[in-house]
Amino acid sequence: MVEIPVALIGCGRIGWMHAANIASHPKLKLSAVHDVHAPSAEKLSAEFGVQAYSTAEGIFSNDSIKAVLVASTTDTHVDFIERSVAAGKPVLCEKPIDLDIARVNQCAKNLEGSDIPVQIGFNRRFDPGHAAASKASRSGEIGELRQVFITSRDPEMPTEAYYRTAGGLMRDMTIHDFDLARFFLVDEPVEVFAIGGRLIDPEFMEELGDHDTAMITMRTEDGKQCHINNFRLATYGYDQRIELVGSDGMVISGNRKPHELQRFSKARTESSEPYMYFFIERYTEAFAAELSEFADCIESGKAPSPGFEDGRRALLLAETAYRSIAERRLVRVAEVE
Amino acid sequence: MVEIPVALIGCGRIGWMHAANIASHPKLKLSAVHDVHAPSAEKLSAEFGVQAYSTAEGIFSNDSIKAVLVASTTDTHVDFIERSVAAGKPVLCEKPIDLDIARVNQCAKNLEGSDIPVQIGFNRRFDPGHAAASKASRSGEIGELRQVFITSRDPEMPTEAYYRTAGGLMRDMTIHDFDLARFFLVDEPVEVFAIGGRLIDPEFMEELGDHDTAMITMRTEDGKQCHINNFRLATYGYDQRIELVGSDGMVISGNRKPHELQRFSKARTESSEPYMYFFIERYTEAFAAELSEFADCIESGKAPSPGFEDGRRALLLAETAYRSIAERRLVRVAEVE
Amino acid sequence: MVEIPVALIGCGRIGWMHAANIASHPKLKLSAVHDVHAPSAEKLSAEFGVQAYSTAEGIFSNDSIKAVLVASTTDTHVDFIERSVAAGKPVLCEKPIDLDIARVNQCAKNLEGSDIPVQIGFNRRFDPGHAAASKASRSGEIGELRQVFITSRDPEMPTEAYYRTAGGLMRDMTIHDFDLARFFLVDEPVEVFAIGGRLIDPEFMEELGDHDTAMITMRTEDGKQCHINNFRLATYGYDQRIELVGSDGMVISGNRKPHELQRFSKARTESSEPYMYFFIERYTEAFAAELSEFADCIESGKAPSPGFEDGRRALLLAETAYRSIAERRLVRVAEVE
Amino acid sequence: MVEIPVALIGCGRIGWMHAANIASHPKLKLSAVHDVHAPSAEKLSAEFGVQAYSTAEGIFSNDSIKAVLVASTTDTHVDFIERSVAAGKPVLCEKPIDLDIARVNQCAKNLEGSDIPVQIGFNRRFDPGHAAASKASRSGEIGELRQVFITSRDPEMPTEAYYRTAGGLMRDMTIHDFDLARFFLVDEPVEVFAIGGRLIDPEFMEELGDHDTAMITMRTEDGKQCHINNFRLATYGYDQRIELVGSDGMVISGNRKPHELQRFSKARTESSEPYMYFFIERYTEAFAAELSEFADCIESGKAPSPGFEDGRRALLLAETAYRSIAERRLVRVAEVE
Repeated sequence: MVEIPVALIGCGRIGWMHAANIASHPKLKLSAVHDVHAPSAEKLSAEFGVQAYSTAEGIFSNDSIKAVLVASTTDTHVDFIERSVAAGKPVLCEKPIDLDIARVNQCAKNLEGSDIPVQIGFNRRFDPGHAAASKASRSGEIGELRQVFITSRDPEMPTEAYYRTAGGLMRDMTIHDFDLARFFLVDEPVEVFAIGGRLIDPEFMEELGDHDTAMITMRTEDGKQCHINNFRLATYGYDQRIELVGSDGMVISGNRKPHELQRFSKARTESSEPYMYFFIERYTEAFAAELSEFADCIESGKAPSPGFEDGRRALLLAETAYRSIAERRLVRVAEVE
Repeated sequence: MVEIPVALIGCGRIGWMHAANIASHPKLKLSAVHDVHAPSAEKLSAEFGVQAYSTAEGIFSNDSIKAVLVASTTDTHVDFIERSVAAGKPVLCEKPIDLDIARVNQCAKNLEGSDIPVQIGFNRRFDPGHAAASKASRSGEIGELRQVFITSRDPEMPTEAYYRTAGGLMRDMTIHDFDLARFFLVDEPVEVFAIGGRLIDPEFMEELGDHDTAMITMRTEDGKQCHINNFRLATYGYDQRIELVGSDGMVISGNRKPHELQRFSKARTESSEPYMYFFIERYTEAFAAELSEFADCIESGKAPSPGFEDGRRALLLAETAYRSIAERRLVRVAEVE
Repeated sequence: MVEIPVALIGCGRIGWMHAANIASHPKLKLSAVHDVHAPSAEKLSAEFGVQAYSTAEGIFSNDSIKAVLVASTTDTHVDFIERSVAAGKPVLCEKPIDLDIARVNQCAKNLEGSDIPVQIGFNRRFDPGHAAASKASRSGEIGELRQVFITSRDPEMPTEAYYRTAGGLMRDMTIHDFDLARFFLVDEPVEVFAIGGRLIDPEFMEELGDHDTAMITMRTEDGKQCHINNFRLATYGYDQRIELVGSDGMVISGNRKPHELQRFSKARTESSEPYMYFFIERYTEAFAAELSEFADCIESGKAPSPGFEDGRRALLLAETAYRSIAERRLVRVAEVE
Repeated sequence: MVEIPVALIGCGRIGWMHAANIASHPKLKLSAVHDVHAPSAEKLSAEFGVQAYSTAEGIFSNDSIKAVLVASTTDTHVDFIERSVAAGKPVLCEKPIDLDIARVNQCAKNLEGSDIPVQIGFNRRFDPGHAAASKASRSGEIGELRQVFITSRDPEMPTEAYYRTAGGLMRDMTIHDFDLARFFLVDEPVEVFAIGGRLIDPEFMEELGDHDTAMITMRTEDGKQCHINNFRLATYGYDQRIELVGSDGMVISGNRKPHELQRFSKARTESSEPYMYFFIERYTEAFAAELSEFADCIESGKAPSPGFEDGRRALLLAETAYRSIAERRLVRVAEVE
């Protein structure tokens, strides 16, 4: 079987992970890398034995490259998606598409009419547990879906530098949960209520106009309810839980530990390991599986899921949540669209 | 040790349970029973060998009775509380105080100045797991409390007759969770946002103007966040979970099963029993422990916890939630007070 | 319904528990108590409002007493069983029947021809989890039973005084596990191999000729295998686990905690409470349920299970295990019979 | 850093797994492959871009190859170990060394005086959970080790062809558990008692003189006790559990699931996925980690653990167990040495 030659743009930590996954994927072949910071690209180039391109244009104009994975800084995403599509190359772009909904809407317009596969890196849909939860719900195993609960807590606050450019809690962290919510609900949320807290680092959050603790409630047209909660400092590890409640049962996609040692003493029983530390470790299979979706779409030409519109809608929900926080009220998504 | 003679008013299912608990409590002695439905009182009277009074007045005017437990219908609660206090008898009254906040406020006024112990039957605070969770939070074990999550789902819908007089989801079911929320938060919630769904039996809920599925978000003055969710049809059993997230850890008071048999087959591992079916079974220790609080307060004269004001404030939160659902907005508790 | 009048012989800690259970059992009525130590009997007599008999004979000769529960010291068991049966009174006798197999065999002979119900207090068969495990096995849910595993560990060593009269690990502690093993296996074990360790208190164990740590292997005629392990110092609580492995699955009756609080910190997740401390707490339902079996047998006249022969066979297995430990070899039960 | 060039001998399923692990190991480099079945070697050669040698000798005589991993059939192990050591090349050899203890003893003699690292593929010691259990025990966290329990059950019987050459349950399956037992006990077991059952496929086991169900008890000189149980048909998945009981606590290295979805319905709660199916999946980290031990020993020259003597002693325990089964008695390891 001939592997699809893929170029990677963006050679930071996430890019490195994607490079390894592409290289070991049976249907893909890492063929080229690029990073504005040349040494980063050269390092990857040496490690994987692929060519480092000094410009992104070099990649887009190269006919032997059949697909592109974008893992560069957020501000380059829209541009690279558009250029990749223009060059006829399917593109898998890391989240978010952009921090500016207007820019995303404009990009959506620019992409209209094209059927070049565009996939967005919402990998958590591909997590074995989360995917199994979705399957149980869609198959009717738990009856009619009624309520969705998503818990997402980071083990530590990001660096100050990261925070300043990340776009805020909703666009940076909750964006994944908005996508998962849509994935489970199937029907679109039509209204959002959110509260943001500044409890971990009030001064810094105040300065940034951001939040570190949040609760979001959403509802679909037919009344399904969804709760999301975020927290930036779960000392016990990266907490990622999904709970789907139906008319005939429930499924929970629970947290995972690196191994199953349990300790028993006078004070405690069944004391287990802290959860897998952060997203690269926790979502290892998901990061690999989203590449399978990408490969299948490249081969078949079918529209990837999650695709561009999923990225746009997740950001819409983030914007709606921000308005709700700012104006302290329930906001209909339609107001923000 | 001389046991405190207690009279029971209300000999239905809940009353029966209280009777057995009073009878077996080392500090209390079941001395008298009354029920508007005489046969109910006589049945209890025969079973426990205590006198059945044909009127409540007979109980209040009897000096040998030193305390009263009210488990009669809600519409009698305010009256029995006031008469008990007027008779100088400490009273433990089942929740809710009343379905009408105005009536409760008036009762509060009427009780002003009295130091006769009045305890409200919010027994879940006394559940060993929930109490341990609270203790872990108050002791600083999990650092500063940041977020509270309360899940409460019934295994089946109540009868139509019950529904018609229960006062609605918030006053009947969520009222327990409002009390638990205040118990864990310590600081008062100042604002409430709630959504109500009609997903299990839309027609009937519509007819009653009630809901069977709900999510509530609350916040305290200092920013602590609280989420409550209710559902009237958890086929897998009575789901009662508490989750407290702090700056230095988390505690979860989880569900309980009647025993710990796990089944393993080709399809599943660690498959466990459905949860304890409903509240009398699940909260057995709590119902007994609230009597210990009552007994201690009778002996010492100290104010019970939860007391009348806790009952009033829980109803205030229910009212605030109803307004939020009706007006589709965030409502400050102060607006309802 | 008329309750069966039951007399209790033996008013120590276990007797006290049985008294409370008899009193609250819907089919039984505590009618009389006796203890060689008169004050103990008087205490129970006052608490439950029943007559204290100064002699056991007073109980056996009283026609109004319809059944007897023996919870006195082991050396009195055989005598009280025989006298109860002679008086035509069904008897439930705490384990063990006696520490001397010869005496038990003689008693068996003496009881031959009588159909007065004799039940032995191997209550663990009635534990909800253990009973559910047995049911799953007997129903074919796990296919054909292949292996049985029984773990039984005490949270602390008994007192020196207790140890000196208990009859040794096999007759005092493992005796319960031998009964459970027979209960699950259904077919009789035909051979036993056991090793005894002196690891917790080597000096004292050496002095007594006893052991504090043990592993036993048994096999039935048709090849089913059974493992039992005992340890006298499980600091994390009273460990009581059953594991049944079949040709089509497995069931595990697991340990139980007083409540389900889980703690999460930087060091640990899902850290739970120590197990229920010791046998009275852990086997609460079982102690009550064995009385239901007793009541049913009194009413119907059917032979109780576990009955005298179960008590005898459990002791036979203990004897076989002792011989195996002493002679360091596999021993056939037939050699000991 | 310069990677150590490693040759792989044996290109079947296990060899393939080792090849991938060597290739991705930062300190190792897959340089050559060989298999008596040339096409197997060629397939690996093409996949990994390394040279396929038509003879093992070609590998041993090649100075540029610095280490060898032997994953060929058992009957070639002794020969390849000796030739590798003779060529001065450290060797990691899959278990078992051989099925014939005499041949293993002879090989031990032949290797005397050499300090070329020889590591045996008992990878389970490197499992994160099992390793953490050992660490907890050796660190004194659970006090003094008293009892060790090892459960090892396969999800399905091997093929008939496999069974005919595998050497029997003890040498093929329990061999891993004998090594783990020595790993946890630290002190050598001095006596073994084992029972073998023919319960899954009695006819075939009878024909082979083998067993499919077993329980083994072992003891060290200082009295520590060890139980091992094996079963060839655990329908619920590959069951691998370790339990270490100490004077001050216990640790359990539990089973692992591919993900943590739990299902809740009217019949069951917390119903989880079957366990990871078989050893390659379950012990993924362990297979990689044993290569790190190998690399470290190659670099430093230190003796690997587990080494040749560990392989020999595990087989000694298997032989002792066989004698115990055959002669139906407790056997001292010294009798077999």
